[in-house]
Amino acid sequence: MNAEKIPDIIVGRLPIYLRALQRMTEKGMKTTSSQELGDHVGISAAQIRKDISQFGEFGKQGTGYSIPFLIEKLRAILKVDRIWDVALIGAGDVGHAVARYQGFANRGFQIVMIFDNDKSKVGEKIGNYVVEDSSHMVKRIRSAGVKIAMLAVPGREAQEVTNQLVQAGIKAILNYAPLHLDVPNGVNVQHVDPVTHLQKMTYYL
Amino acid sequence: MNAEKIPDIIVGRLPIYLRALQRMTEKGMKTTSSQELGDHVGISAAQIRKDISQFGEFGKQGTGYSIPFLIEKLRAILKVDRIWDVALIGAGDVGHAVARYQGFANRGFQIVMIFDNDKSKVGEKIGNYVVEDSSHMVKRIRSAGVKIAMLAVPGREAQEVTNQLVQAGIKAILNYAPLHLDVPNGVNVQHVDPVTHLQKMTYYL
Repeated sequence: MNAEKIPDIIVGRLPIYLRALQRMTEKGMKTTSSQELGDHVGISAAQIRKDISQFGEFGKQGTGYSIPFLIEKLRAILKVDRIWDVALIGAGDVGHAVARYQGFANRGFQIVMIFDNDKSKVGEKIGNYVVEDSSHMVKRIRSAGVKIAMLAVPGREAQEVTNQLVQAGIKAILNYAPLHLDVPNGVNVQHVDPVTHLQKMTYYL
Repeated sequence: MNAEKIPDIIVGRLPIYLRALQRMTEKGMKTTSSQELGDHVGISAAQIRKDISQFGEFGKQGTGYSIPFLIEKLRAILKVDRIWDVALIGAGDVGHAVARYQGFANRGFQIVMIFDNDKSKVGEKIGNYVVEDSSHMVKRIRSAGVKIAMLAVPGREAQEVTNQLVQAGIKAILNYAPLHLDVPNGVNVQHVDPVTHLQKMTYYL
């Protein structure tokens, strides 16, 4: 199914579909239509049909999509039909909020280590995790084979920590700092930026 | 320029372009191409040309886009050529992180009030703000005419607070809780959800 590369722009929409479908499941729904799914995510039914048809024939004319079947397919395509270990860097406000976020369950990720360079935070327990000294970070990440990191450090430290993460073998970085990170080819960066979300709504005000 | 409605899916990409262009400006760049902008945001040059052509003829064949001109146009389209007042609900970990976020400057938003229902937090100073009692929230938001809220409350309280925000006249809600909010037509909700960002990267691992 992944024999042909799916365009990045479609890959970017699949997690939104998956989240909506998982919420439908929580409500006890078993089937949906491209129209209904589109209403949930703010994307046209035609676009959803086109996106989903990129990777196979999942819907049946007239009966719509089986939600469990579509969830299973989307999880396989996005490779979240497994649990990825994640390293969290930074135990400040953002780090605390991320470590306590209730939305990770059953969605493919678990935080397995937290680092901070502030000695007063090292040893602190946040939820199930104990904050570790970031001087051990590269070694720990590399030996555990962790590929994904969430970066919740102050902006002035973000690029330096990123360089260390790349050195440690990290291939995907979720960045909470409001600045661009330079990374080599083969390393992906995504930004958690409330402003881009807000700007998507002001157009309609 | 806004005479014809721009499809939601394109509106959703414009803040990403705007952020990339503003970072180019910070580096001293004056012009860019759809290819270069595309490399920055992970979207094809063809898609960028198509998106931007939706709302006018901004680029010149061969010379590319003027960055300041394109920024000005995007800010006008997204209505962030002004400063929107924002109410922040919740002064826990997430609320603290949001209140201290350094990425709001020059991007169209300022937090003007913070509320919490925990009496021990009321009166606390976070950055430039003093946490107010959420029992005054509806009245305060309505009398100030605030239209945008950031919701950083525990999941179990999110829908009830949302109902109050709608009653107060809020039209755009940025939700940090990992659950769906029911809102009437005319109210927009966006989610800050690290998992959807992570899932966009696992495809490539």
